[in-house]
Amino acid sequence: MLLSTFLPFLAAFSGALAANAPTTCRPASFIPDADDNTVPRRFGFLLYRATDPLDFLGPSEVLFTLGRFAHVDLFYIAETLDLVSTELVPPATNPYNSTVWTTIAPTHTYDNPPPGLDVLVIPGGPGARAPTPATLDFVRKTYPNLDYFMTVCTGAMIAARAGVLEGKNATTNRAAWLAVKATGPNTNWIGDERWVVDGNIWTSSGVAAGIDAMVAFIACFWGETLTNKTLLAMEYFRHPDPTNDPFAVWPNGTYKYI
Amino acid sequence: MLLSTFLPFLAAFSGALAANAPTTCRPASFIPDADDNTVPRRFGFLLYRATDPLDFLGPSEVLFTLGRFAHVDLFYIAETLDLVSTELVPPATNPYNSTVWTTIAPTHTYDNPPPGLDVLVIPGGPGARAPTPATLDFVRKTYPNLDYFMTVCTGAMIAARAGVLEGKNATTNRAAWLAVKATGPNTNWIGDERWVVDGNIWTSSGVAAGIDAMVAFIACFWGETLTNKTLLAMEYFRHPDPTNDPFAVWPNGTYKYI
Repeated sequence: MLLSTFLPFLAAFSGALAANAPTTCRPASFIPDADDNTVPRRFGFLLYRATDPLDFLGPSEVLFTLGRFAHVDLFYIAETLDLVSTELVPPATNPYNSTVWTTIAPTHTYDNPPPGLDVLVIPGGPGARAPTPATLDFVRKTYPNLDYFMTVCTGAMIAARAGVLEGKNATTNRAAWLAVKATGPNTNWIGDERWVVDGNIWTSSGVAAGIDAMVAFIACFWGETLTNKTLLAMEYFRHPDPTNDPFAVWPNGTYKYI
Repeated sequence: MLLSTFLPFLAAFSGALAANAPTTCRPASFIPDADDNTVPRRFGFLLYRATDPLDFLGPSEVLFTLGRFAHVDLFYIAETLDLVSTELVPPATNPYNSTVWTTIAPTHTYDNPPPGLDVLVIPGGPGARAPTPATLDFVRKTYPNLDYFMTVCTGAMIAARAGVLEGKNATTNRAAWLAVKATGPNTNWIGDERWVVDGNIWTSSGVAAGIDAMVAFIACFWGETLTNKTLLAMEYFRHPDPTNDPFAVWPNGTYKYI
């Protein structure tokens, strides 16, 4: 829950962390009480046509699993409540005419979002190249009321177009590096870290990197005890060091190590 | 496509690979032609209430991504076409009253499955502990007509109850080790490999291990070139060695290294 919910004029000027949301990581030994209202518990994922499925379902799984050990709420927010497909469109993204997508039900709409959202996560995918005006408006309006903001993969394109990454350090998908950079000319794009943190903004590189960014986010604000329980239940090999990135790119978008 | 589609009586006795489906891995240099009918292209995922979302959406993502570089078809098969929720039920699985699930649309039903399925993947999750008779019947009837069969996590419970793992080497989720073992008393349960291959049956340990098993499966039957393109597009750190498993368990279900 956010102070800024009650003081929207303040949020508009500050950009703006709730007064009780920590800006730096907790000690590794931190274990939140069941009613600790300083930990981010309410996560919204933006859903739109032609997202990459793991972009939102990878980080979602970290929260799904954490939610077995502590109270967590996860929402999927879209323009309408219609089912959202991760289909490969436009057709140029599907040259072999595969049928490989997933269809997901949103829980909320831009016009009726979940109250008191602590974190908004923007996934990427082919659809991130052509966000609707309603999507950009929602991101623009929602960001000032959040404690934290995260993008996965080319979700950074949507954040950049909405102005959220203006003057910030950020990263994104390596395979779409130059295209994303073009959407944020005033962003300092970092090509050799798997995820980047600047204030309350967390950005991750492509697809699976979103899982590692969310694990790092939970480790930062929920402490190592619950993070390790989550990783054990997921049987997930953790990548704790963002600078260990075999997919790193040079500023011109060519791969450093591949 | 399967020889056994045309010779169901043979499949019933043989258990049974199609005549053209390889039983051992291709050379690393193998690159299938666009119309190569020996590579597994048609994948079905079983969907049921209270699956673990990453159990099916992790391996799905590998196929979603491969499908951008070659023709692949992916289907979600459930008892009906109603939306399927990964909600944490029964309530004992959700002690903190979290709302963290995803709702997915199946593409096919048990009564009207996709024709010519090459691979069936059974995810795990709380719902795997109480499969419906229709689910067990579908697995029992479908297995003899497949080229390959895969379980993720406690999906092995459903396979064991359906009789598919009888006399086989297999693995499963470490956190549910003893409960799964009890469903397959005549299966040789291997607790220190992230995934296990026995003939045309691939079984993986918990949740995220399903991604590594599917990457290994694709590497085995599609060769390294397309696998590496897939991993690069996913920005996924590969775990190529199934014996490298920090979550390994002893036969009594206690962790070896944790």
